[in-house]
Amino acid sequence: MIETRGLLIVISGPSGSGKTSITKILRNIEPKLKFSISATTRAPRAGEVDGVDYYFFSEVEFQRRIEAGEFAEWAVYGNHRYGTLKKMVEDSLQSGNDILLEIEVQGATQLRKLYPDGVFIFILPPSQASLGERLRKRKTESEDDIRRRLLIAKSEISHINNYDYMVFNDDNQIEKAVENVKCIIAAAKCRVNESVLTQIKNEFILTCF
Amino acid sequence: MIETRGLLIVISGPSGSGKTSITKILRNIEPKLKFSISATTRAPRAGEVDGVDYYFFSEVEFQRRIEAGEFAEWAVYGNHRYGTLKKMVEDSLQSGNDILLEIEVQGATQLRKLYPDGVFIFILPPSQASLGERLRKRKTESEDDIRRRLLIAKSEISHINNYDYMVFNDDNQIEKAVENVKCIIAAAKCRVNESVLTQIKNEFILTCF
Repeated sequence: MIETRGLLIVISGPSGSGKTSITKILRNIEPKLKFSISATTRAPRAGEVDGVDYYFFSEVEFQRRIEAGEFAEWAVYGNHRYGTLKKMVEDSLQSGNDILLEIEVQGATQLRKLYPDGVFIFILPPSQASLGERLRKRKTESEDDIRRRLLIAKSEISHINNYDYMVFNDDNQIEKAVENVKCIIAAAKCRVNESVLTQIKNEFILTCF
Repeated sequence: MIETRGLLIVISGPSGSGKTSITKILRNIEPKLKFSISATTRAPRAGEVDGVDYYFFSEVEFQRRIEAGEFAEWAVYGNHRYGTLKKMVEDSLQSGNDILLEIEVQGATQLRKLYPDGVFIFILPPSQASLGERLRKRKTESEDDIRRRLLIAKSEISHINNYDYMVFNDDNQIEKAVENVKCIIAAAKCRVNESVLTQIKNEFILTCF
């Protein structure tokens, strides 16, 4: 009926917001949704497959691709570079498939410029206190590390104005957050924009009867 | 958690689009959603109750309320005036309740100015041909009346650029259209706007730990 390009969907959120869990559930229940595969300079971990989990590039290769303008976004985290290849995103969108990117706020800011019509979603914990509790429950990090993560979270959340939507991931109610993300995607497909206006005009306004 | 005003939701669409059927289903499955009651100068039909189906006003009373600025929108259809009382809408929004208005494109244009943050949804039939078929199936009108309705439909659809969203109501798939409307409302509640930004800042950015 109405032909449209695929939708670019960005999901961000601080560590402990549950964004990765939400994305994993979406992967299971939305078989048609494509998931972006990031490129990175970090070494593959046990079991990680090149082209499935990540595209693993050497520093030289990554740098070459930056200079060739091949990245839709890239940033440094820890000691490694991470990025999203433009071609992968474009191939998906042009074939009409939606593509979901789980990325950090720096990358999202870059993508916003390239894809102003994308759907940018920020996942939030119910409260600052809850975020601390979640990180402490993991019991994998020291109190110092947790405080550092909370500071990073504050800085990330301060970028929320770059996003279109925010979804609270309340404790023990992840399915509600997933439902909201699904709805945000469904709603975005119903948006009235220039591309659909032309098609509507051709079908309804210019037709004779 | 986050406190928000209610949401103003406008549903429009040409005769035969199925907007009234969609609204009726929403009334059953969304008990918390309030439905606007229009004011009109037409006489009550058998069984219609003042304050439930419509607010029935005399011509003099309607005119007085126009002059007092009591209408959020009003327009003339056929020989009668129809309108929406500002107070009813405001009472609902201020108490945090969403309110749904099923109104024509003229009224929607007026409401858009008063409520730029409202959610404006246009219901469409799958095609121009399908719209004609639906109107003919009703068998209540002459072919001339149907052609007149189709011309009005064209004119109405040409206002679709005043709406945020369009929902196709495909033949025999009304539940899909209802689901899309539900999602549009759910997504609108997740929008990042000035009001929530302040609350997010207070909860996450300005808190100490």
